Amino acid sequence: MPAIEHFWAVVPAGGSGTRLWPLSRSGSPKFLHDLTGSGRSLLQETVDRLAPMAGDRLLVVTGARHRDRVLEQLPEVAADRVLGEPSPRDSMAAIGLAAAMLERVDPDAVLGSFAADHVVGDRMALERAVTLAAEVARDGWLVTVGIEPAHASTAFGYVRQGGELEDHAGAYVVERFVEKPSADLARSYVESGAYRWNAGMFVVRPTVLLDLLASWHPDLAAGLREIAADPGRLDAVWPTLTTIAIDHAVAEPAAAEGRVATVPADLGWDDIGDFHSLYGVLGGADLRVLGDPGDVLAEGSTGLVVPRGGRLVALVGVDDVVVVDTPDAVLVTTRDRAQDVKTLVDRLRDLGRDDLT
Amino acid sequence: MPAIEHFWAVVPAGGSGTRLWPLSRSGSPKFLHDLTGSGRSLLQETVDRLAPMAGDRLLVVTGARHRDRVLEQLPEVAADRVLGEPSPRDSMAAIGLAAAMLERVDPDAVLGSFAADHVVGDRMALERAVTLAAEVARDGWLVTVGIEPAHASTAFGYVRQGGELEDHAGAYVVERFVEKPSADLARSYVESGAYRWNAGMFVVRPTVLLDLLASWHPDLAAGLREIAADPGRLDAVWPTLTTIAIDHAVAEPAAAEGRVATVPADLGWDDIGDFHSLYGVLGGADLRVLGDPGDVLAEGSTGLVVPRGGRLVALVGVDDVVVVDTPDAVLVTTRDRAQDVKTLVDRLRDLGRDDLT
Repeated sequence: MPAIEHFWAVVPAGGSGTRLWPLSRSGSPKFLHDLTGSGRSLLQETVDRLAPMAGDRLLVVTGARHRDRVLEQLPEVAADRVLGEPSPRDSMAAIGLAAAMLERVDPDAVLGSFAADHVVGDRMALERAVTLAAEVARDGWLVTVGIEPAHASTAFGYVRQGGELEDHAGAYVVERFVEKPSADLARSYVESGAYRWNAGMFVVRPTVLLDLLASWHPDLAAGLREIAADPGRLDAVWPTLTTIAIDHAVAEPAAAEGRVATVPADLGWDDIGDFHSLYGVLGGADLRVLGDPGDVLAEGSTGLVVPRGGRLVALVGVDDVVVVDTPDAVLVTTRDRAQDVKTLVDRLRDLGRDDLT
Repeated sequence: MPAIEHFWAVVPAGGSGTRLWPLSRSGSPKFLHDLTGSGRSLLQETVDRLAPMAGDRLLVVTGARHRDRVLEQLPEVAADRVLGEPSPRDSMAAIGLAAAMLERVDPDAVLGSFAADHVVGDRMALERAVTLAAEVARDGWLVTVGIEPAHASTAFGYVRQGGELEDHAGAYVVERFVEKPSADLARSYVESGAYRWNAGMFVVRPTVLLDLLASWHPDLAAGLREIAADPGRLDAVWPTLTTIAIDHAVAEPAAAEGRVATVPADLGWDDIGDFHSLYGVLGGADLRVLGDPGDVLAEGSTGLVVPRGGRLVALVGVDDVVVVDTPDAVLVTTRDRAQDVKTLVDRLRDLGRDDLT
């Protein structure tokens, strides 16, 4: 496909992925890892699939401590296209900073934000959805790509889809955003057919986004525009910015005012939020290996093995197990309990074992 | 207690303990390891508990390749008391070689053989049993210490106990030896009250043992006596010796002729045959650690962890799991499947991964 005119891809590369410990660490977060066995990190795969739409119009926003690693992984991206955040300020500041810079360099820009640590199985479907979303965004909407729910997940937020837009077939008003639901609620959402997963893929004109932000968080919008006008002010202004997610800062209140649209799409999307999710993404046999199968010796076992410790991982008679081997820590859990890995990381921090987190 | 006069302890230190892989390796077998957390290896503990009965009358018989490690672990034992077998020839050759040497150095000797890789919880009970067994052995019997079965094990052979000896209260004729039974048979053995576990603890006069051997395996008995008469013949004669266990070579046929007695005893004995057995021996909480508990971080998990890889072992929500971490291999299995660990070692050998076995 030809690139979408004036379309800018913004990739917030943050989050530590603690539920993927000990693979993902605060110093080497999830987006820097190859979690699909493709030979490319999640960040690299994200940039790869955005390139056909955005060409070289790409901005990555990441923590200052990860900026060198990001540049290493993305040799095709110019250094001034990778913005380093002095400290974590959540997704609104990250995406908002990119928006504030873009409204200065390209008055016709439409930006799309895509997390650096998700997977998309169907790139063609993504391109179709984003192309439509960009058209809708040009008319002033804040557009979110609404993922067709593959199951009644309690791990994601949802958007409730309303009526179709008059001018844009295939795009719909968003009635509201809802937080991660209970299992019962998630089932009712999926059965109703009216809900989509909110994957944080927002498509919007930078000025629309910042003006919406300015109506609820004027200081934050002003701070971001101040940095864009004078990048030398970054270190002074950044610490004063409100730490808030884009969903709470803009998407939810804008939906209440009828300013948000959604383009539903079936993308084979996953956020690889934990090892259970990683198992699903990998597919294949009952025993799935992310790494060299020669490093695993198994007898009557199922589940997921990630052999990254340079050693043999041997299994006998364990079902739905998750074994993640790294040079300084080995994790053993089950697919069912994978979401609780985060508690280990909390305990390690309490124990002062920051060397392991 | 005072030592038992002319009592010689013979410790065959062999077997690779493949069901305890990756802790036990062919180059570093089970008996060299501390498997109880005492700070002493199984071999050292074995020698420690024999010393009150045997004083310094101790012979260790081990593979030539392990002799240096054995001497290192037993600095109190003179070098000529540790015999190195040029190649594995099973327990008859090992114990028979010690017997052949002892009948030359001490005509009044009674020997007791005790595997180097078993545990005994009740040393006083062992001393009482061996003291009685030595008295019975002086009258020409081949005596076995019969372990009170703690459960219907299918992992051990049994002896069927007959009538009490006229001259020795507490000692009984052995009607026969039986091989490892099926689960049903094991239950019936234990319910009958007439069966004891055969732990391979034989007490006998050396000449009685060798003369019994000579009646069924004359070449083997002659070969052992030839080596004892001229140790320089070891390398030439040893490879010609029959490879056979003492049970088959002597104990079973001698029982058929009414020449075997047993002294039943409740010793808290275990052969630590696999990690399930090791779990039982360690006792304590639902999650048992052989090693530094600081190397284990667990959340809602039970089973056994052996952290020997210098790394953190982290568990979340796994029950009855067995995790054995070593520098070049990590094993994950369950207590139920612990006996199948051996198959992994077989597969590693088939794969030519002798570096790991």
